[in-house]
Amino acid sequence: MFNTIGRTIPKEIFGLGTLQLFDSKGVVKNTQQSKHRQRNSERNKILDSLETSIRETGLKDGMTISFHHHFRNGDYIINMVLNTIARMGIKDLTIAPSSLADIHAPLINHIKTGVIRRIETSGLRGELADAISNGLMNIPVVINSHGGRARAIASGELPIDVAFLGVPSCDPAGNANGYSRDNSALSECGSLGYAKVDAQYAKKVVLITDHLVEYPNTPFGIPESHVDYIVVVNSIGDPKGIVSGATRFTKNPKDLLIAQSAADVIAASGYFEDGFSLQTGSGGASLAATRFLREKMIERNIKASFALGGITGQMVDLHEEGLIKKLLDVQGFDLKAVASLKNNRFHQQICAEYYASPDNPGSAVNQLDITVLSALEIDLDFNVNVITGSDGVIRGASGGHCDSAAGAACSIIVAPLIRGRMPSILDRVHTIVTPGCSIDVVVTDQGIAVNPKRQDLYQNLKKANLPVMSIEELKAKANQIVGVPEQIKVEDKIIGVVKYRDGSVIDVIHQVKKDF
Amino acid sequence: MFNTIGRTIPKEIFGLGTLQLFDSKGVVKNTQQSKHRQRNSERNKILDSLETSIRETGLKDGMTISFHHHFRNGDYIINMVLNTIARMGIKDLTIAPSSLADIHAPLINHIKTGVIRRIETSGLRGELADAISNGLMNIPVVINSHGGRARAIASGELPIDVAFLGVPSCDPAGNANGYSRDNSALSECGSLGYAKVDAQYAKKVVLITDHLVEYPNTPFGIPESHVDYIVVVNSIGDPKGIVSGATRFTKNPKDLLIAQSAADVIAASGYFEDGFSLQTGSGGASLAATRFLREKMIERNIKASFALGGITGQMVDLHEEGLIKKLLDVQGFDLKAVASLKNNRFHQQICAEYYASPDNPGSAVNQLDITVLSALEIDLDFNVNVITGSDGVIRGASGGHCDSAAGAACSIIVAPLIRGRMPSILDRVHTIVTPGCSIDVVVTDQGIAVNPKRQDLYQNLKKANLPVMSIEELKAKANQIVGVPEQIKVEDKIIGVVKYRDGSVIDVIHQVKKDF
Repeated sequence: MFNTIGRTIPKEIFGLGTLQLFDSKGVVKNTQQSKHRQRNSERNKILDSLETSIRETGLKDGMTISFHHHFRNGDYIINMVLNTIARMGIKDLTIAPSSLADIHAPLINHIKTGVIRRIETSGLRGELADAISNGLMNIPVVINSHGGRARAIASGELPIDVAFLGVPSCDPAGNANGYSRDNSALSECGSLGYAKVDAQYAKKVVLITDHLVEYPNTPFGIPESHVDYIVVVNSIGDPKGIVSGATRFTKNPKDLLIAQSAADVIAASGYFEDGFSLQTGSGGASLAATRFLREKMIERNIKASFALGGITGQMVDLHEEGLIKKLLDVQGFDLKAVASLKNNRFHQQICAEYYASPDNPGSAVNQLDITVLSALEIDLDFNVNVITGSDGVIRGASGGHCDSAAGAACSIIVAPLIRGRMPSILDRVHTIVTPGCSIDVVVTDQGIAVNPKRQDLYQNLKKANLPVMSIEELKAKANQIVGVPEQIKVEDKIIGVVKYRDGSVIDVIHQVKKDF
Repeated sequence: MFNTIGRTIPKEIFGLGTLQLFDSKGVVKNTQQSKHRQRNSERNKILDSLETSIRETGLKDGMTISFHHHFRNGDYIINMVLNTIARMGIKDLTIAPSSLADIHAPLINHIKTGVIRRIETSGLRGELADAISNGLMNIPVVINSHGGRARAIASGELPIDVAFLGVPSCDPAGNANGYSRDNSALSECGSLGYAKVDAQYAKKVVLITDHLVEYPNTPFGIPESHVDYIVVVNSIGDPKGIVSGATRFTKNPKDLLIAQSAADVIAASGYFEDGFSLQTGSGGASLAATRFLREKMIERNIKASFALGGITGQMVDLHEEGLIKKLLDVQGFDLKAVASLKNNRFHQQICAEYYASPDNPGSAVNQLDITVLSALEIDLDFNVNVITGSDGVIRGASGGHCDSAAGAACSIIVAPLIRGRMPSILDRVHTIVTPGCSIDVVVTDQGIAVNPKRQDLYQNLKKANLPVMSIEELKAKANQIVGVPEQIKVEDKIIGVVKYRDGSVIDVIHQVKKDF
């Protein structure tokens, strides 16, 4: 047998099997100058519209699409894509965004019209959460943790047909990042940590950008090898929406009191030594703990080896001061964190799988000494609810809560003892997101409780004269002030399924009773 | 149904199927301080010996193992691993290193004793190449390009059971890099571009390091999520071996003449404009072209957008001078390149798939304006041989040659017209590695030939008064000086199969005749 350039090639070789003959027709050379062909080539990934990109991906009824939530409440992509899909008449989709926010209320209509059949997300808020909690959907929404979602996508348990990912900078080959090196990005969101997983595993990947830059857009968060199509739009999101509610810099005196107390617990825990590591979850008191830790670190000449997770300006301050050596950033919690990722060499963008996947024994959460996490409700078994409010309606997110709690050597929950007129400590939380067996300490403005499993911690905190009491005593304190709240009344219908990070079901959420 | 924390979970939900019940036994918390548990934990990846790691991977007769060649002739890993495997009695392996060098002569014995049954590599040199060229193996060695290997591994055509990867720094979770941030690495090799592909796709990954550092070893070339086991040894390689033969800084006057001429061709090509991009392959003249380009860039106020591939100190100089904006580094060609990757923010480590996989339309080679590549032989159809010497014996490597030639808008081959007493231009090259249809210009010390397909280039070079002639004229010049060489005599037995980047067979290599 001859190949097209006249070489004699056997059809088959022992040990190598059948051979494929070289055909020079397969060699396609493009001799245009690269800066021209980048924008005008047969191989170009840039398509003329979102609609074209949806058609090119082959998206069909019943498929699964995904999004990231790095813009949090400033995200324009999800509504934009679903409006286009609805116009195109595609139906019965599963959507699997890394999370959803208030801004996504228009999804209600897409659910009603059958465009969206099923939702997997980390969280839900606002009107959409309200409608779903009241029975909008036939199939319950599935709540995943960030690590659990990464695991499910990577393992094939949650296969993504098409990922639509908004990116603040992108070159014509698809190298994308959450900021722009030329400082002219319209909308920066910092780390693309959750989006990186979708880009890696989705069958088709569409990047949506408002800022096309020259090749090569290095360093990149998403490599062009993971990208199929690029669509340029006017705006992908509003960075101001990144800092909203859960990630705001708190000045609330009660939050600051709790943060101070959490810092005291960290300092007394036995883990506060040179080289310790730290995560602070969303929520004002949790994020503010970093500020109070600073003094103690300087005083005792302690430097942290790394801080992990959602990165805040408060952590960036300590990093730039040399008090935290490295930042491992899966998500920017504010604009200072976004700027730091661009400018600080040891501020590293990591993907959600690296961050917290339980299939990954070496994941970063497993290297944590301390994590400080918020809670809506805590119960006598130390189980934590961060998803449903005191009315039983979904109003939060699983996030990295259960991942970080399981990974860290010492997990600290911070919460006001009373929120509004409701106690935070209950006999049983309405919804379990994080199991009590992974929670070590509960810090409130009125006292501290230690999980009885952790006698070592209890002794350490006692020795430091911190106001430690039993969780039952904490609960009694709350009940003394506001009484025992009425039980939330629910319907039989299940509207949400809460998965633990390993994919097992830790709880279900029932429809709230209309007359409650 | 109840899960282990007392929540009522249905067995099945419409639209979600069967549910898995949460079991708190699955929550394994490790409360040791992280710096201790990093080195002493049940989840630790560090094993006590190479032999243990081989056992843990489940390596069995007939499997495929892989290695990287970033240490080039200074690599200690391949011999170390194969000696251990041989001792353990495992046989019939396919080895798929990214390349092999002189230092790997001990493999001859492993082939003879049946430990190694088959080899896939980019190149072979020295005694091993000699023995194989003389018929040592029953199954021909498969020669892949760097892009072709990445494609084959990523597509599943070349599945890797276990990758054994030497890494100059590694933390206990497996975050690894080709250098060390604490500047105390014993052996640095720079980019881990080829190894990154193996780490990503191999079923099991063993990192072998001589420098264990604290978590988190960021920035990393290989993320811990790709790593199964870590073995610490005394030394993984000799960085001095990186610069050997093909990557040496040349002072040879003929090489410099050719390099100067190649720079003239680039300047006249029509592609030499602000924002152009460049690759130079291994070989003295090719690498030296960068030096001669510098003056022209300053003179005409031209900056390159990026340089790609094997990165050299000569490129680093231009980068640090601001003449090349970004470096995309799949492999460090010398120690200056290694240091630059550590210190220069826009010197980016890229993997082989990103670099050159033909399955990746946006791969970096496709963004190239200019590539300068060496050759052992060129024929009248512009086909290039970079694998067999004038005696028909394997003595080179496919490398990124055919990848870069196909991707670049203008591919320039540099070679002395006469090498030893042998002409470089022949009627037919002994072995085709890169097809002539992807080659644009041939530059020798005695003149320049342009592929007749590229009349545009021909006109540009003519206008610049460069010594352009036909390839036949170049060949005649060579034959005038050294005559027409005797045809290489070969046996029927095929000892090598050369694959083009798409996996098709472009040529085969026959055993050399013993009495030749």
